Amino acid sequence: MKFSEIVHKLDLVSEFNSLTDNKDCDPEISGVAPIDEAANGTLSYIEGGKFAAMVGKTDASALILPLDQTLQTQATERGIAWIATSEPRLVFAKAIALFYKPWQPAPEIHPTAIIHPDAQLGENVYIGAHVVVQAGVKIGNHVCIHPNVVIYPGVEIGDRTILHANCTIHERSKIGADCVIHSGVVIGGEGFGFVPTAAGWFKMEQSGYTVLEDGVEVGCNSTIDRPAVGETRISRNTKIDNLVQIGHGCQVGENCAMAAQVGLAGGVKVGNRVILAGQAGVANQAKIGDGAIATAKTGIHNDIEPGAIVSGIPAIPHKVFLKAAAIYHRLPEMYQTLKQLQRQK
Amino acid sequence: MKFSEIVHKLDLVSEFNSLTDNKDCDPEISGVAPIDEAANGTLSYIEGGKFAAMVGKTDASALILPLDQTLQTQATERGIAWIATSEPRLVFAKAIALFYKPWQPAPEIHPTAIIHPDAQLGENVYIGAHVVVQAGVKIGNHVCIHPNVVIYPGVEIGDRTILHANCTIHERSKIGADCVIHSGVVIGGEGFGFVPTAAGWFKMEQSGYTVLEDGVEVGCNSTIDRPAVGETRISRNTKIDNLVQIGHGCQVGENCAMAAQVGLAGGVKVGNRVILAGQAGVANQAKIGDGAIATAKTGIHNDIEPGAIVSGIPAIPHKVFLKAAAIYHRLPEMYQTLKQLQRQK
Amino acid sequence: MKFSEIVHKLDLVSEFNSLTDNKDCDPEISGVAPIDEAANGTLSYIEGGKFAAMVGKTDASALILPLDQTLQTQATERGIAWIATSEPRLVFAKAIALFYKPWQPAPEIHPTAIIHPDAQLGENVYIGAHVVVQAGVKIGNHVCIHPNVVIYPGVEIGDRTILHANCTIHERSKIGADCVIHSGVVIGGEGFGFVPTAAGWFKMEQSGYTVLEDGVEVGCNSTIDRPAVGETRISRNTKIDNLVQIGHGCQVGENCAMAAQVGLAGGVKVGNRVILAGQAGVANQAKIGDGAIATAKTGIHNDIEPGAIVSGIPAIPHKVFLKAAAIYHRLPEMYQTLKQLQRQK
Repeated sequence: MKFSEIVHKLDLVSEFNSLTDNKDCDPEISGVAPIDEAANGTLSYIEGGKFAAMVGKTDASALILPLDQTLQTQATERGIAWIATSEPRLVFAKAIALFYKPWQPAPEIHPTAIIHPDAQLGENVYIGAHVVVQAGVKIGNHVCIHPNVVIYPGVEIGDRTILHANCTIHERSKIGADCVIHSGVVIGGEGFGFVPTAAGWFKMEQSGYTVLEDGVEVGCNSTIDRPAVGETRISRNTKIDNLVQIGHGCQVGENCAMAAQVGLAGGVKVGNRVILAGQAGVANQAKIGDGAIATAKTGIHNDIEPGAIVSGIPAIPHKVFLKAAAIYHRLPEMYQTLKQLQRQK
Repeated sequence: MKFSEIVHKLDLVSEFNSLTDNKDCDPEISGVAPIDEAANGTLSYIEGGKFAAMVGKTDASALILPLDQTLQTQATERGIAWIATSEPRLVFAKAIALFYKPWQPAPEIHPTAIIHPDAQLGENVYIGAHVVVQAGVKIGNHVCIHPNVVIYPGVEIGDRTILHANCTIHERSKIGADCVIHSGVVIGGEGFGFVPTAAGWFKMEQSGYTVLEDGVEVGCNSTIDRPAVGETRISRNTKIDNLVQIGHGCQVGENCAMAAQVGLAGGVKVGNRVILAGQAGVANQAKIGDGAIATAKTGIHNDIEPGAIVSGIPAIPHKVFLKAAAIYHRLPEMYQTLKQLQRQK
Repeated sequence: MKFSEIVHKLDLVSEFNSLTDNKDCDPEISGVAPIDEAANGTLSYIEGGKFAAMVGKTDASALILPLDQTLQTQATERGIAWIATSEPRLVFAKAIALFYKPWQPAPEIHPTAIIHPDAQLGENVYIGAHVVVQAGVKIGNHVCIHPNVVIYPGVEIGDRTILHANCTIHERSKIGADCVIHSGVVIGGEGFGFVPTAAGWFKMEQSGYTVLEDGVEVGCNSTIDRPAVGETRISRNTKIDNLVQIGHGCQVGENCAMAAQVGLAGGVKVGNRVILAGQAGVANQAKIGDGAIATAKTGIHNDIEPGAIVSGIPAIPHKVFLKAAAIYHRLPEMYQTLKQLQRQK
């Protein structure tokens, strides 16, 4: 598709773009590419920072640029068509969607799927081969359940939700509309509830519920546990990456993002718009305020204030952590100096 | 069920409870609930600590309380029926079991299960849809194998063990009686054995065995590897949470608990009653003594004494870690002070 | 098999071994065993170090020893047959292969497998029960696909590659020859791409490709994501352990090893022969040079030089980390001393 058509489809005609001055530079764009691999005929983007220099080198035929006149001029000089925006990454995300739609099978109930006669299926659902749907399950409209998924009794699944292959949804789970559950995910498995006794561990049955509200995504092989009582709840539009553990009874707010291998122990309360970077962990019952951020590998043991940015094990304010971490390697030298000063007394 | 019936069924008639003084306060209890969400008609519990204040606020109709007269009086005054015990959480766990039993399908061999003709099945087994049982597998009595589980050749599974949906048991594995293997678990996969050579990695075949003794539980998507030689062994009643990695040749003792995302490298020896908190890791060949505890995110590289409580990367005694961690953020200030003192010399 | 036959089959006749001086000591060897569990009739090995003392105690009938005359003499005196080599572990790995071959099913297309009519299958493939192969998939010769695997449309799988039970290969993935994909692995799942906007997270479609070159192994329940644009690529002979996360757009070189629970965020570039130990993590866009090593739990935020050995969070040179970590527990004492010195001024 022509560059001008992309600009049109993205509704960016009135934004700064190279077509205003240079209507003839309207390359045919066949796809989207990362800036350091972009070939002739592709559209890429630059957000600024260390990739800005790529404007001078890339083979891309069109670029989404930040509101930076120098970069725009540079692109024009190199014969690259461009759109300028305050949100290059967002515009690029929209551009990708012009070239690619993820594969979605047409509605079908595969004959090898085993569906309990009292399960309720909505309209236009896809249920792939070897899926198992147990008694009392309710599945909304336009739901897509890929092969080899297993759904335990009584589960509810909202409209347009996608369950990828080989995931498992346990009893007492309710998944909202427009969710994406990736391959290998386990929702509603029994929480880790064992009470120590003189005779060993006594198992606490996990009789609670697991609720995913609308628009939640859960990455491959992540696990979200069912609690002993009450609910484990992931609120609207929260996005969870791969291999994440959400313990029993956690309450996660809206619009959070949890990167891969994050772990929440039991009963953690996470506010709205919280970001936990990769491999961060949160201890039992801790509360994390709205908008807080934990950097990669942070270990949170106590409550975190709204808006705080924390790092380290245990977590401290990120800025403090950066300064302390910058000194850490000097510990042996500091220790020697200190001993020397003491001797000189 | 009436509160008095619960007291009776839990065999707590002779313990302190509100019925002695107040026989008429015998509410109908319809379920169990966490203390901060308990509605009218539910039973909840308080262990003390920060939740003690909830006695004054909860809508629960009955409570399991610690041996604390103040809390008991407070409950009585608010018209809440109560039982007092030295182990509120344990009694609550038993109470949950009065209201809830996890779903367990009736014995059946689903017609879509593929079972090798020479596999041996015990009595009253459930084998769900699309399960695959390869040659030479031996399955005990009352075993429950949920849909889409795959069992490689020669595996043995003990009586009453439950395998949840989508888990995989590899050859040379032996699982005891009364185990629970949660969804997505992989038991007996090939250990990570590669010998470095000038020509690259040389694969060491994993010819050993993976043994889970009776009463072991393994959480969703955890992995327990098969060793090159000898055994990987998880001893009686050890409980393992989700996304845990047990490397090839590890020997884990009895009654241990490993929280989510714990990782044991190869050949680790763990004693009895060891507790490893979330995201803790143990390096190759390390030994952990009986009753030791590692807090969340601890990195163990060397042997740990029996009964020790350790924290940090690398692990040091927990008390020492707490003190050092409390000073860590002062490193920049200490560094400045030190430079100043040197200058003043 | 006789010890002499093992020596012969391993092509070690001309190496130092006990048969030269002691032809009659040629025990029948029935299997291989770890040194601390080796019974009569087994072959084991010793690399030196802390296991060297086992020569004096083991019940093994034959040993693979390092080039250490003391150990050899000791073995001879105890009537143990031995081979000496500069690479005991490698020779032991080869010896295991004389006694054990992993189970590999004979070629067969199981009648319950659902294979799209336009999928292309090579010769002598095994496709197990309940496997699903979607449209346009190309499968090479001698490929072995265990039960309940799901392959999305258009995937390519090279010759002799093994896919273990319950793994999932998503669209836009290409797996080379001689790969092993262990149970529960997810290849090519959607990368975690969400752009923050005032209205919440905007999903960036993941339109790129996931490529595993020849000889790659991926451990149980690991996940390798598909990027928005470009490729995620794992190069030849790289070995990945269990529960590892490789984010979208990562480029991993040849002959690397990543231990269990390692996590790479997005766009990480890893050179050749890099070793990442257990639970190490690498932040977005970081570059790791050829031959670098990160020890367990290391957190890498910035680029790492070729050949560097790093530890800590954030990563610093390993030797520096060891020294600083050895002082860490003295922080409270240092802080007190410092305050005292200041007071004495």
